[in-house]
Parts: sequence; C-alpha cells; structure tokens
Amino acid sequence: MIKVIVIGSGNVAQHLILAFAKSTTATLIQIYSRQKETLTHLLDSSKITTSFNELLEADLYIIAVSDDAIDSVSAQLPFINRLVVHTSGSVALNALDNKNRKGVLYPLQTFSKGKPMDFSTVPICIESENSNDFQLLDKAAKSISDAVFAVNTDQRKALHVAAVFVNNFVNNLYQIGKEICEEHQVPFDILKPLILETANKIMTLSPEDAQTGPAKRNDLETIASHLSLLSNKNQATIYKILTQSIQDNGTKL
Amino acid sequence: MIKVIVIGSGNVAQHLILAFAKSTTATLIQIYSRQKETLTHLLDSSKITTSFNELLEADLYIIAVSDDAIDSVSAQLPFINRLVVHTSGSVALNALDNKNRKGVLYPLQTFSKGKPMDFSTVPICIESENSNDFQLLDKAAKSISDAVFAVNTDQRKALHVAAVFVNNFVNNLYQIGKEICEEHQVPFDILKPLILETANKIMTLSPEDAQTGPAKRNDLETIASHLSLLSNKNQATIYKILTQSIQDNGTKL
Repeated sequence: MIKVIVIGSGNVAQHLILAFAKSTTATLIQIYSRQKETLTHLLDSSKITTSFNELLEADLYIIAVSDDAIDSVSAQLPFINRLVVHTSGSVALNALDNKNRKGVLYPLQTFSKGKPMDFSTVPICIESENSNDFQLLDKAAKSISDAVFAVNTDQRKALHVAAVFVNNFVNNLYQIGKEICEEHQVPFDILKPLILETANKIMTLSPEDAQTGPAKRNDLETIASHLSLLSNKNQATIYKILTQSIQDNGTKL
Repeated sequence: MIKVIVIGSGNVAQHLILAFAKSTTATLIQIYSRQKETLTHLLDSSKITTSFNELLEADLYIIAVSDDAIDSVSAQLPFINRLVVHTSGSVALNALDNKNRKGVLYPLQTFSKGKPMDFSTVPICIESENSNDFQLLDKAAKSISDAVFAVNTDQRKALHVAAVFVNNFVNNLYQIGKEICEEHQVPFDILKPLILETANKIMTLSPEDAQTGPAKRNDLETIASHLSLLSNKNQATIYKILTQSIQDNGTKL
C-alpha cells in the first residue's frame, strides 16, 4: 500500500480525502489541517494533525493549499528527501522547497464544496523529477482516477489557461445569458437544456464542427438586431469580439 | 387529434418529424420538402409533398425553414385563415404573411443532424395572436415537450441573444481551449470532464455562485502569467475582456 498524507483542508483536499478513502492501492494515513474541526465530518480526528512536527512517515505528501502558500508550506516540512507534490494547475514544480523530491498531482476539475464528485472520471495531470517518483505518483493517481496524464510544467500551465477559457469564462457567459433573461423577464431555466447540450456536443464533435449561429453564418442582419437589443456596454463589447472570433475561425478553416 | 403539417426539411424540421411521430395528441399528416429524398429516411414518401398546391387541410402548419425564407414561404401558401407558425428565435411573429393566423413555436435547443434528441426535454416557446390559437399551439407543443413557455416576440428575441452567449460564444471558448491545448501538445480530451461539470454546475448553482478562477479571486499574478502565455492576439483580447467582465460582476455583487 502506498502511504499518503494530504496537507490542507480546502475543497481539493476534501475531495482527495474522499477519493483516497475508496482506493485499494493507496491509503491515507494522516491529514494536516490548521484546524481539526474543518475535517472531522470526513474522517476520525485521530488522523488529523495540526502540527507539521507530528507528520508521520509516508510515501507521498500531497500539498493541497492555495497557490501562494505552496512554497512556504513545503519549506516548513520537518523532513528531507521525501516525495512532496502540490495540486496546482498554475504553480511550477520548482516552487516546492528543494529539501524534498518534487512532484505535481493536479486534478483538472472544478470542485464544489459539499457536492460529491465521481473522482474516477477526474483527469489527473502528474509530473515528477525522476522516473521512480513518477511511477509511484502514477500508481497513486491511478488508484483514484481512470484518467491520468503525464504533463510537464509548461503544458500544465497551458492547460490551466485553457481551463480558464472553458470554465471561468464560459461561466461568465452563462452569467450574461442570465442577466439578459432577467432584464427581459424570461426565466433563465429555459436556457438550461441548451447549456447542457452545448457541452455534451463537444464530447463527440470538435468545436469547429459544433459551431453554429449568426456569426458562423455571417448573418449580418441578425447580428445587428442582437446588438441593438444589448443595452449593457460590456455585453455588447463581448458580443462583438466573440462574433469576430467565430468569423476569423471560419475564414481560417 | 391535432392535424399538423411541417414545411421544411432541415435540422429542426427533421427533429420535429421524429417528435410528432411519438405524440398521441397530435399527428403529422404531411410534410412539404423541396426534394422528397431529403426525408424518405424518416417517413413514407406518400406523406411528403413537393408542391404547396398539394398541401392538405390541417389544424397547424409549422414553417421550419431558414429565417430569411419565412416570409416568402408563408406568402406562397395557397390558403387563408389557417394557423401558420414559424420556428425561429429571432424572427417576429409579424414576418408571417397576413392571410393566415400567425404564431410561433420556437424549440430552444441546438440540433445536430443525425444525433437523436429527447424532445420531451426541449423547451418550446410559443406565441400566437389569439387565445384559441394559443390553446391549440400549447396542446400541440405539450404533446412533444414537457417544457412549454408562453414567450412574446420581444422576450423571444432576448432569449435568442442569450442563447448566442451560452451556446455559440461558449462553443467558441471551447474552440480557443482546444487551440491552446494543440499549441502546447496536450490532449484537449483532458478538458472534457471540466467542460461537462461547468455546465452541470449551473443546473443547481447560479452563475454568480459558480464563478471561480483568477479573475474572481483578483489573482493579478496568475492573470499576468496567463496573458504572457497567450501568443495569439485574439485570445489575449478575449482573456482580458472576460477577466474584466468577471471582475465587474464581483464589484456589482
């Protein structure tokens, strides 16, 4: 069994705790949390430590804390030469302190507090400094997910930027859709099946092939009519730029 | 039984044909198509006419053609005082010819050719000039969908604009995500579970509550680092504008 310790108590840490609880190859022997109470709904309090000095010996330490705390947390660990990984999409492998062997275990998914997640479908991007560590990390990651990928720091950063587009920015477009509905007193719920199907389409079609709408058809009359309806300047700017982006794509193909 | 005739042979027409085939309240008695062959895989060729003059008497005629053909098709119908509706999100009720009673039956969904669709979950927005027609339209729409909404022309236009944001523009962001992956040689497939979960979240959370990411956190370091990775000017422009849009939302709340 691979002995794992998770350091952190936030969203990602909590989902990792639940995922490793089901693993038959890796076992979670301890969690570090600044406050025990944050995690006592998930596991026995005897497994939770609030002191770095009480950390047990393990094969893999997973630092699941906010990006800007990774370097200081890794520097505070009271041991050397062990495998220590972080879970961030945007922080380099080298942000980890030099006294331990470094790695990354980045679960590329959006986690909601309290909403259960089938971790077996969550893609995990892993990286390490040497092949022994890679094998151990690969084994631990595969024990909680069916989708494990070797991804280096540069690629991971690119993935993280791409994730901002398909997650954060997409959600902002949902928000704008909702605002337009509210302004015209139609229920946003009418759009929900469309939102789901738009995402579902991409599971089997490429975005190029799935693209439809007035911009794709170069339907200038509808575009002008839509722009005349948008009273909000921010919405009109986004409408124009994304229409242009779709049209530029069309000419590229 | 409500007697229905569909005029058109495109994507929406084909999905309506399949939906009405299952209805127990409405029956599709005939289809108009410029070419019989387009539809013979879906229904018996005796039910297809290629001539407006051969159109039978029906309770409801559904014109499912491209937006710019709606007025000319409705003008060519060789009868008067019958209920004729179109299926467009962006065309006014009044685009239909005056010689018949007007209405709209707008299924708000993205239809892919050949991909089956559970029509019972497709929201249908209906509109008519008088309450008798509304009742008939409502009955026909409810016979193929569990989500029927009364939506007037102005509201329908707003919904259509909102749909462009949550469907066409979202798909363009998927496309950009794919381009960034390709440029850095990571498989776009890694992002697919995130794409699905981003859409799924909105089924239970408001977009405001679902918003995460560097823009929401005002994480200027990550934003600058992401912008430095984007070599494509279009991508950088969209990144900046949508980051600003999320931040403006944050201050509004």
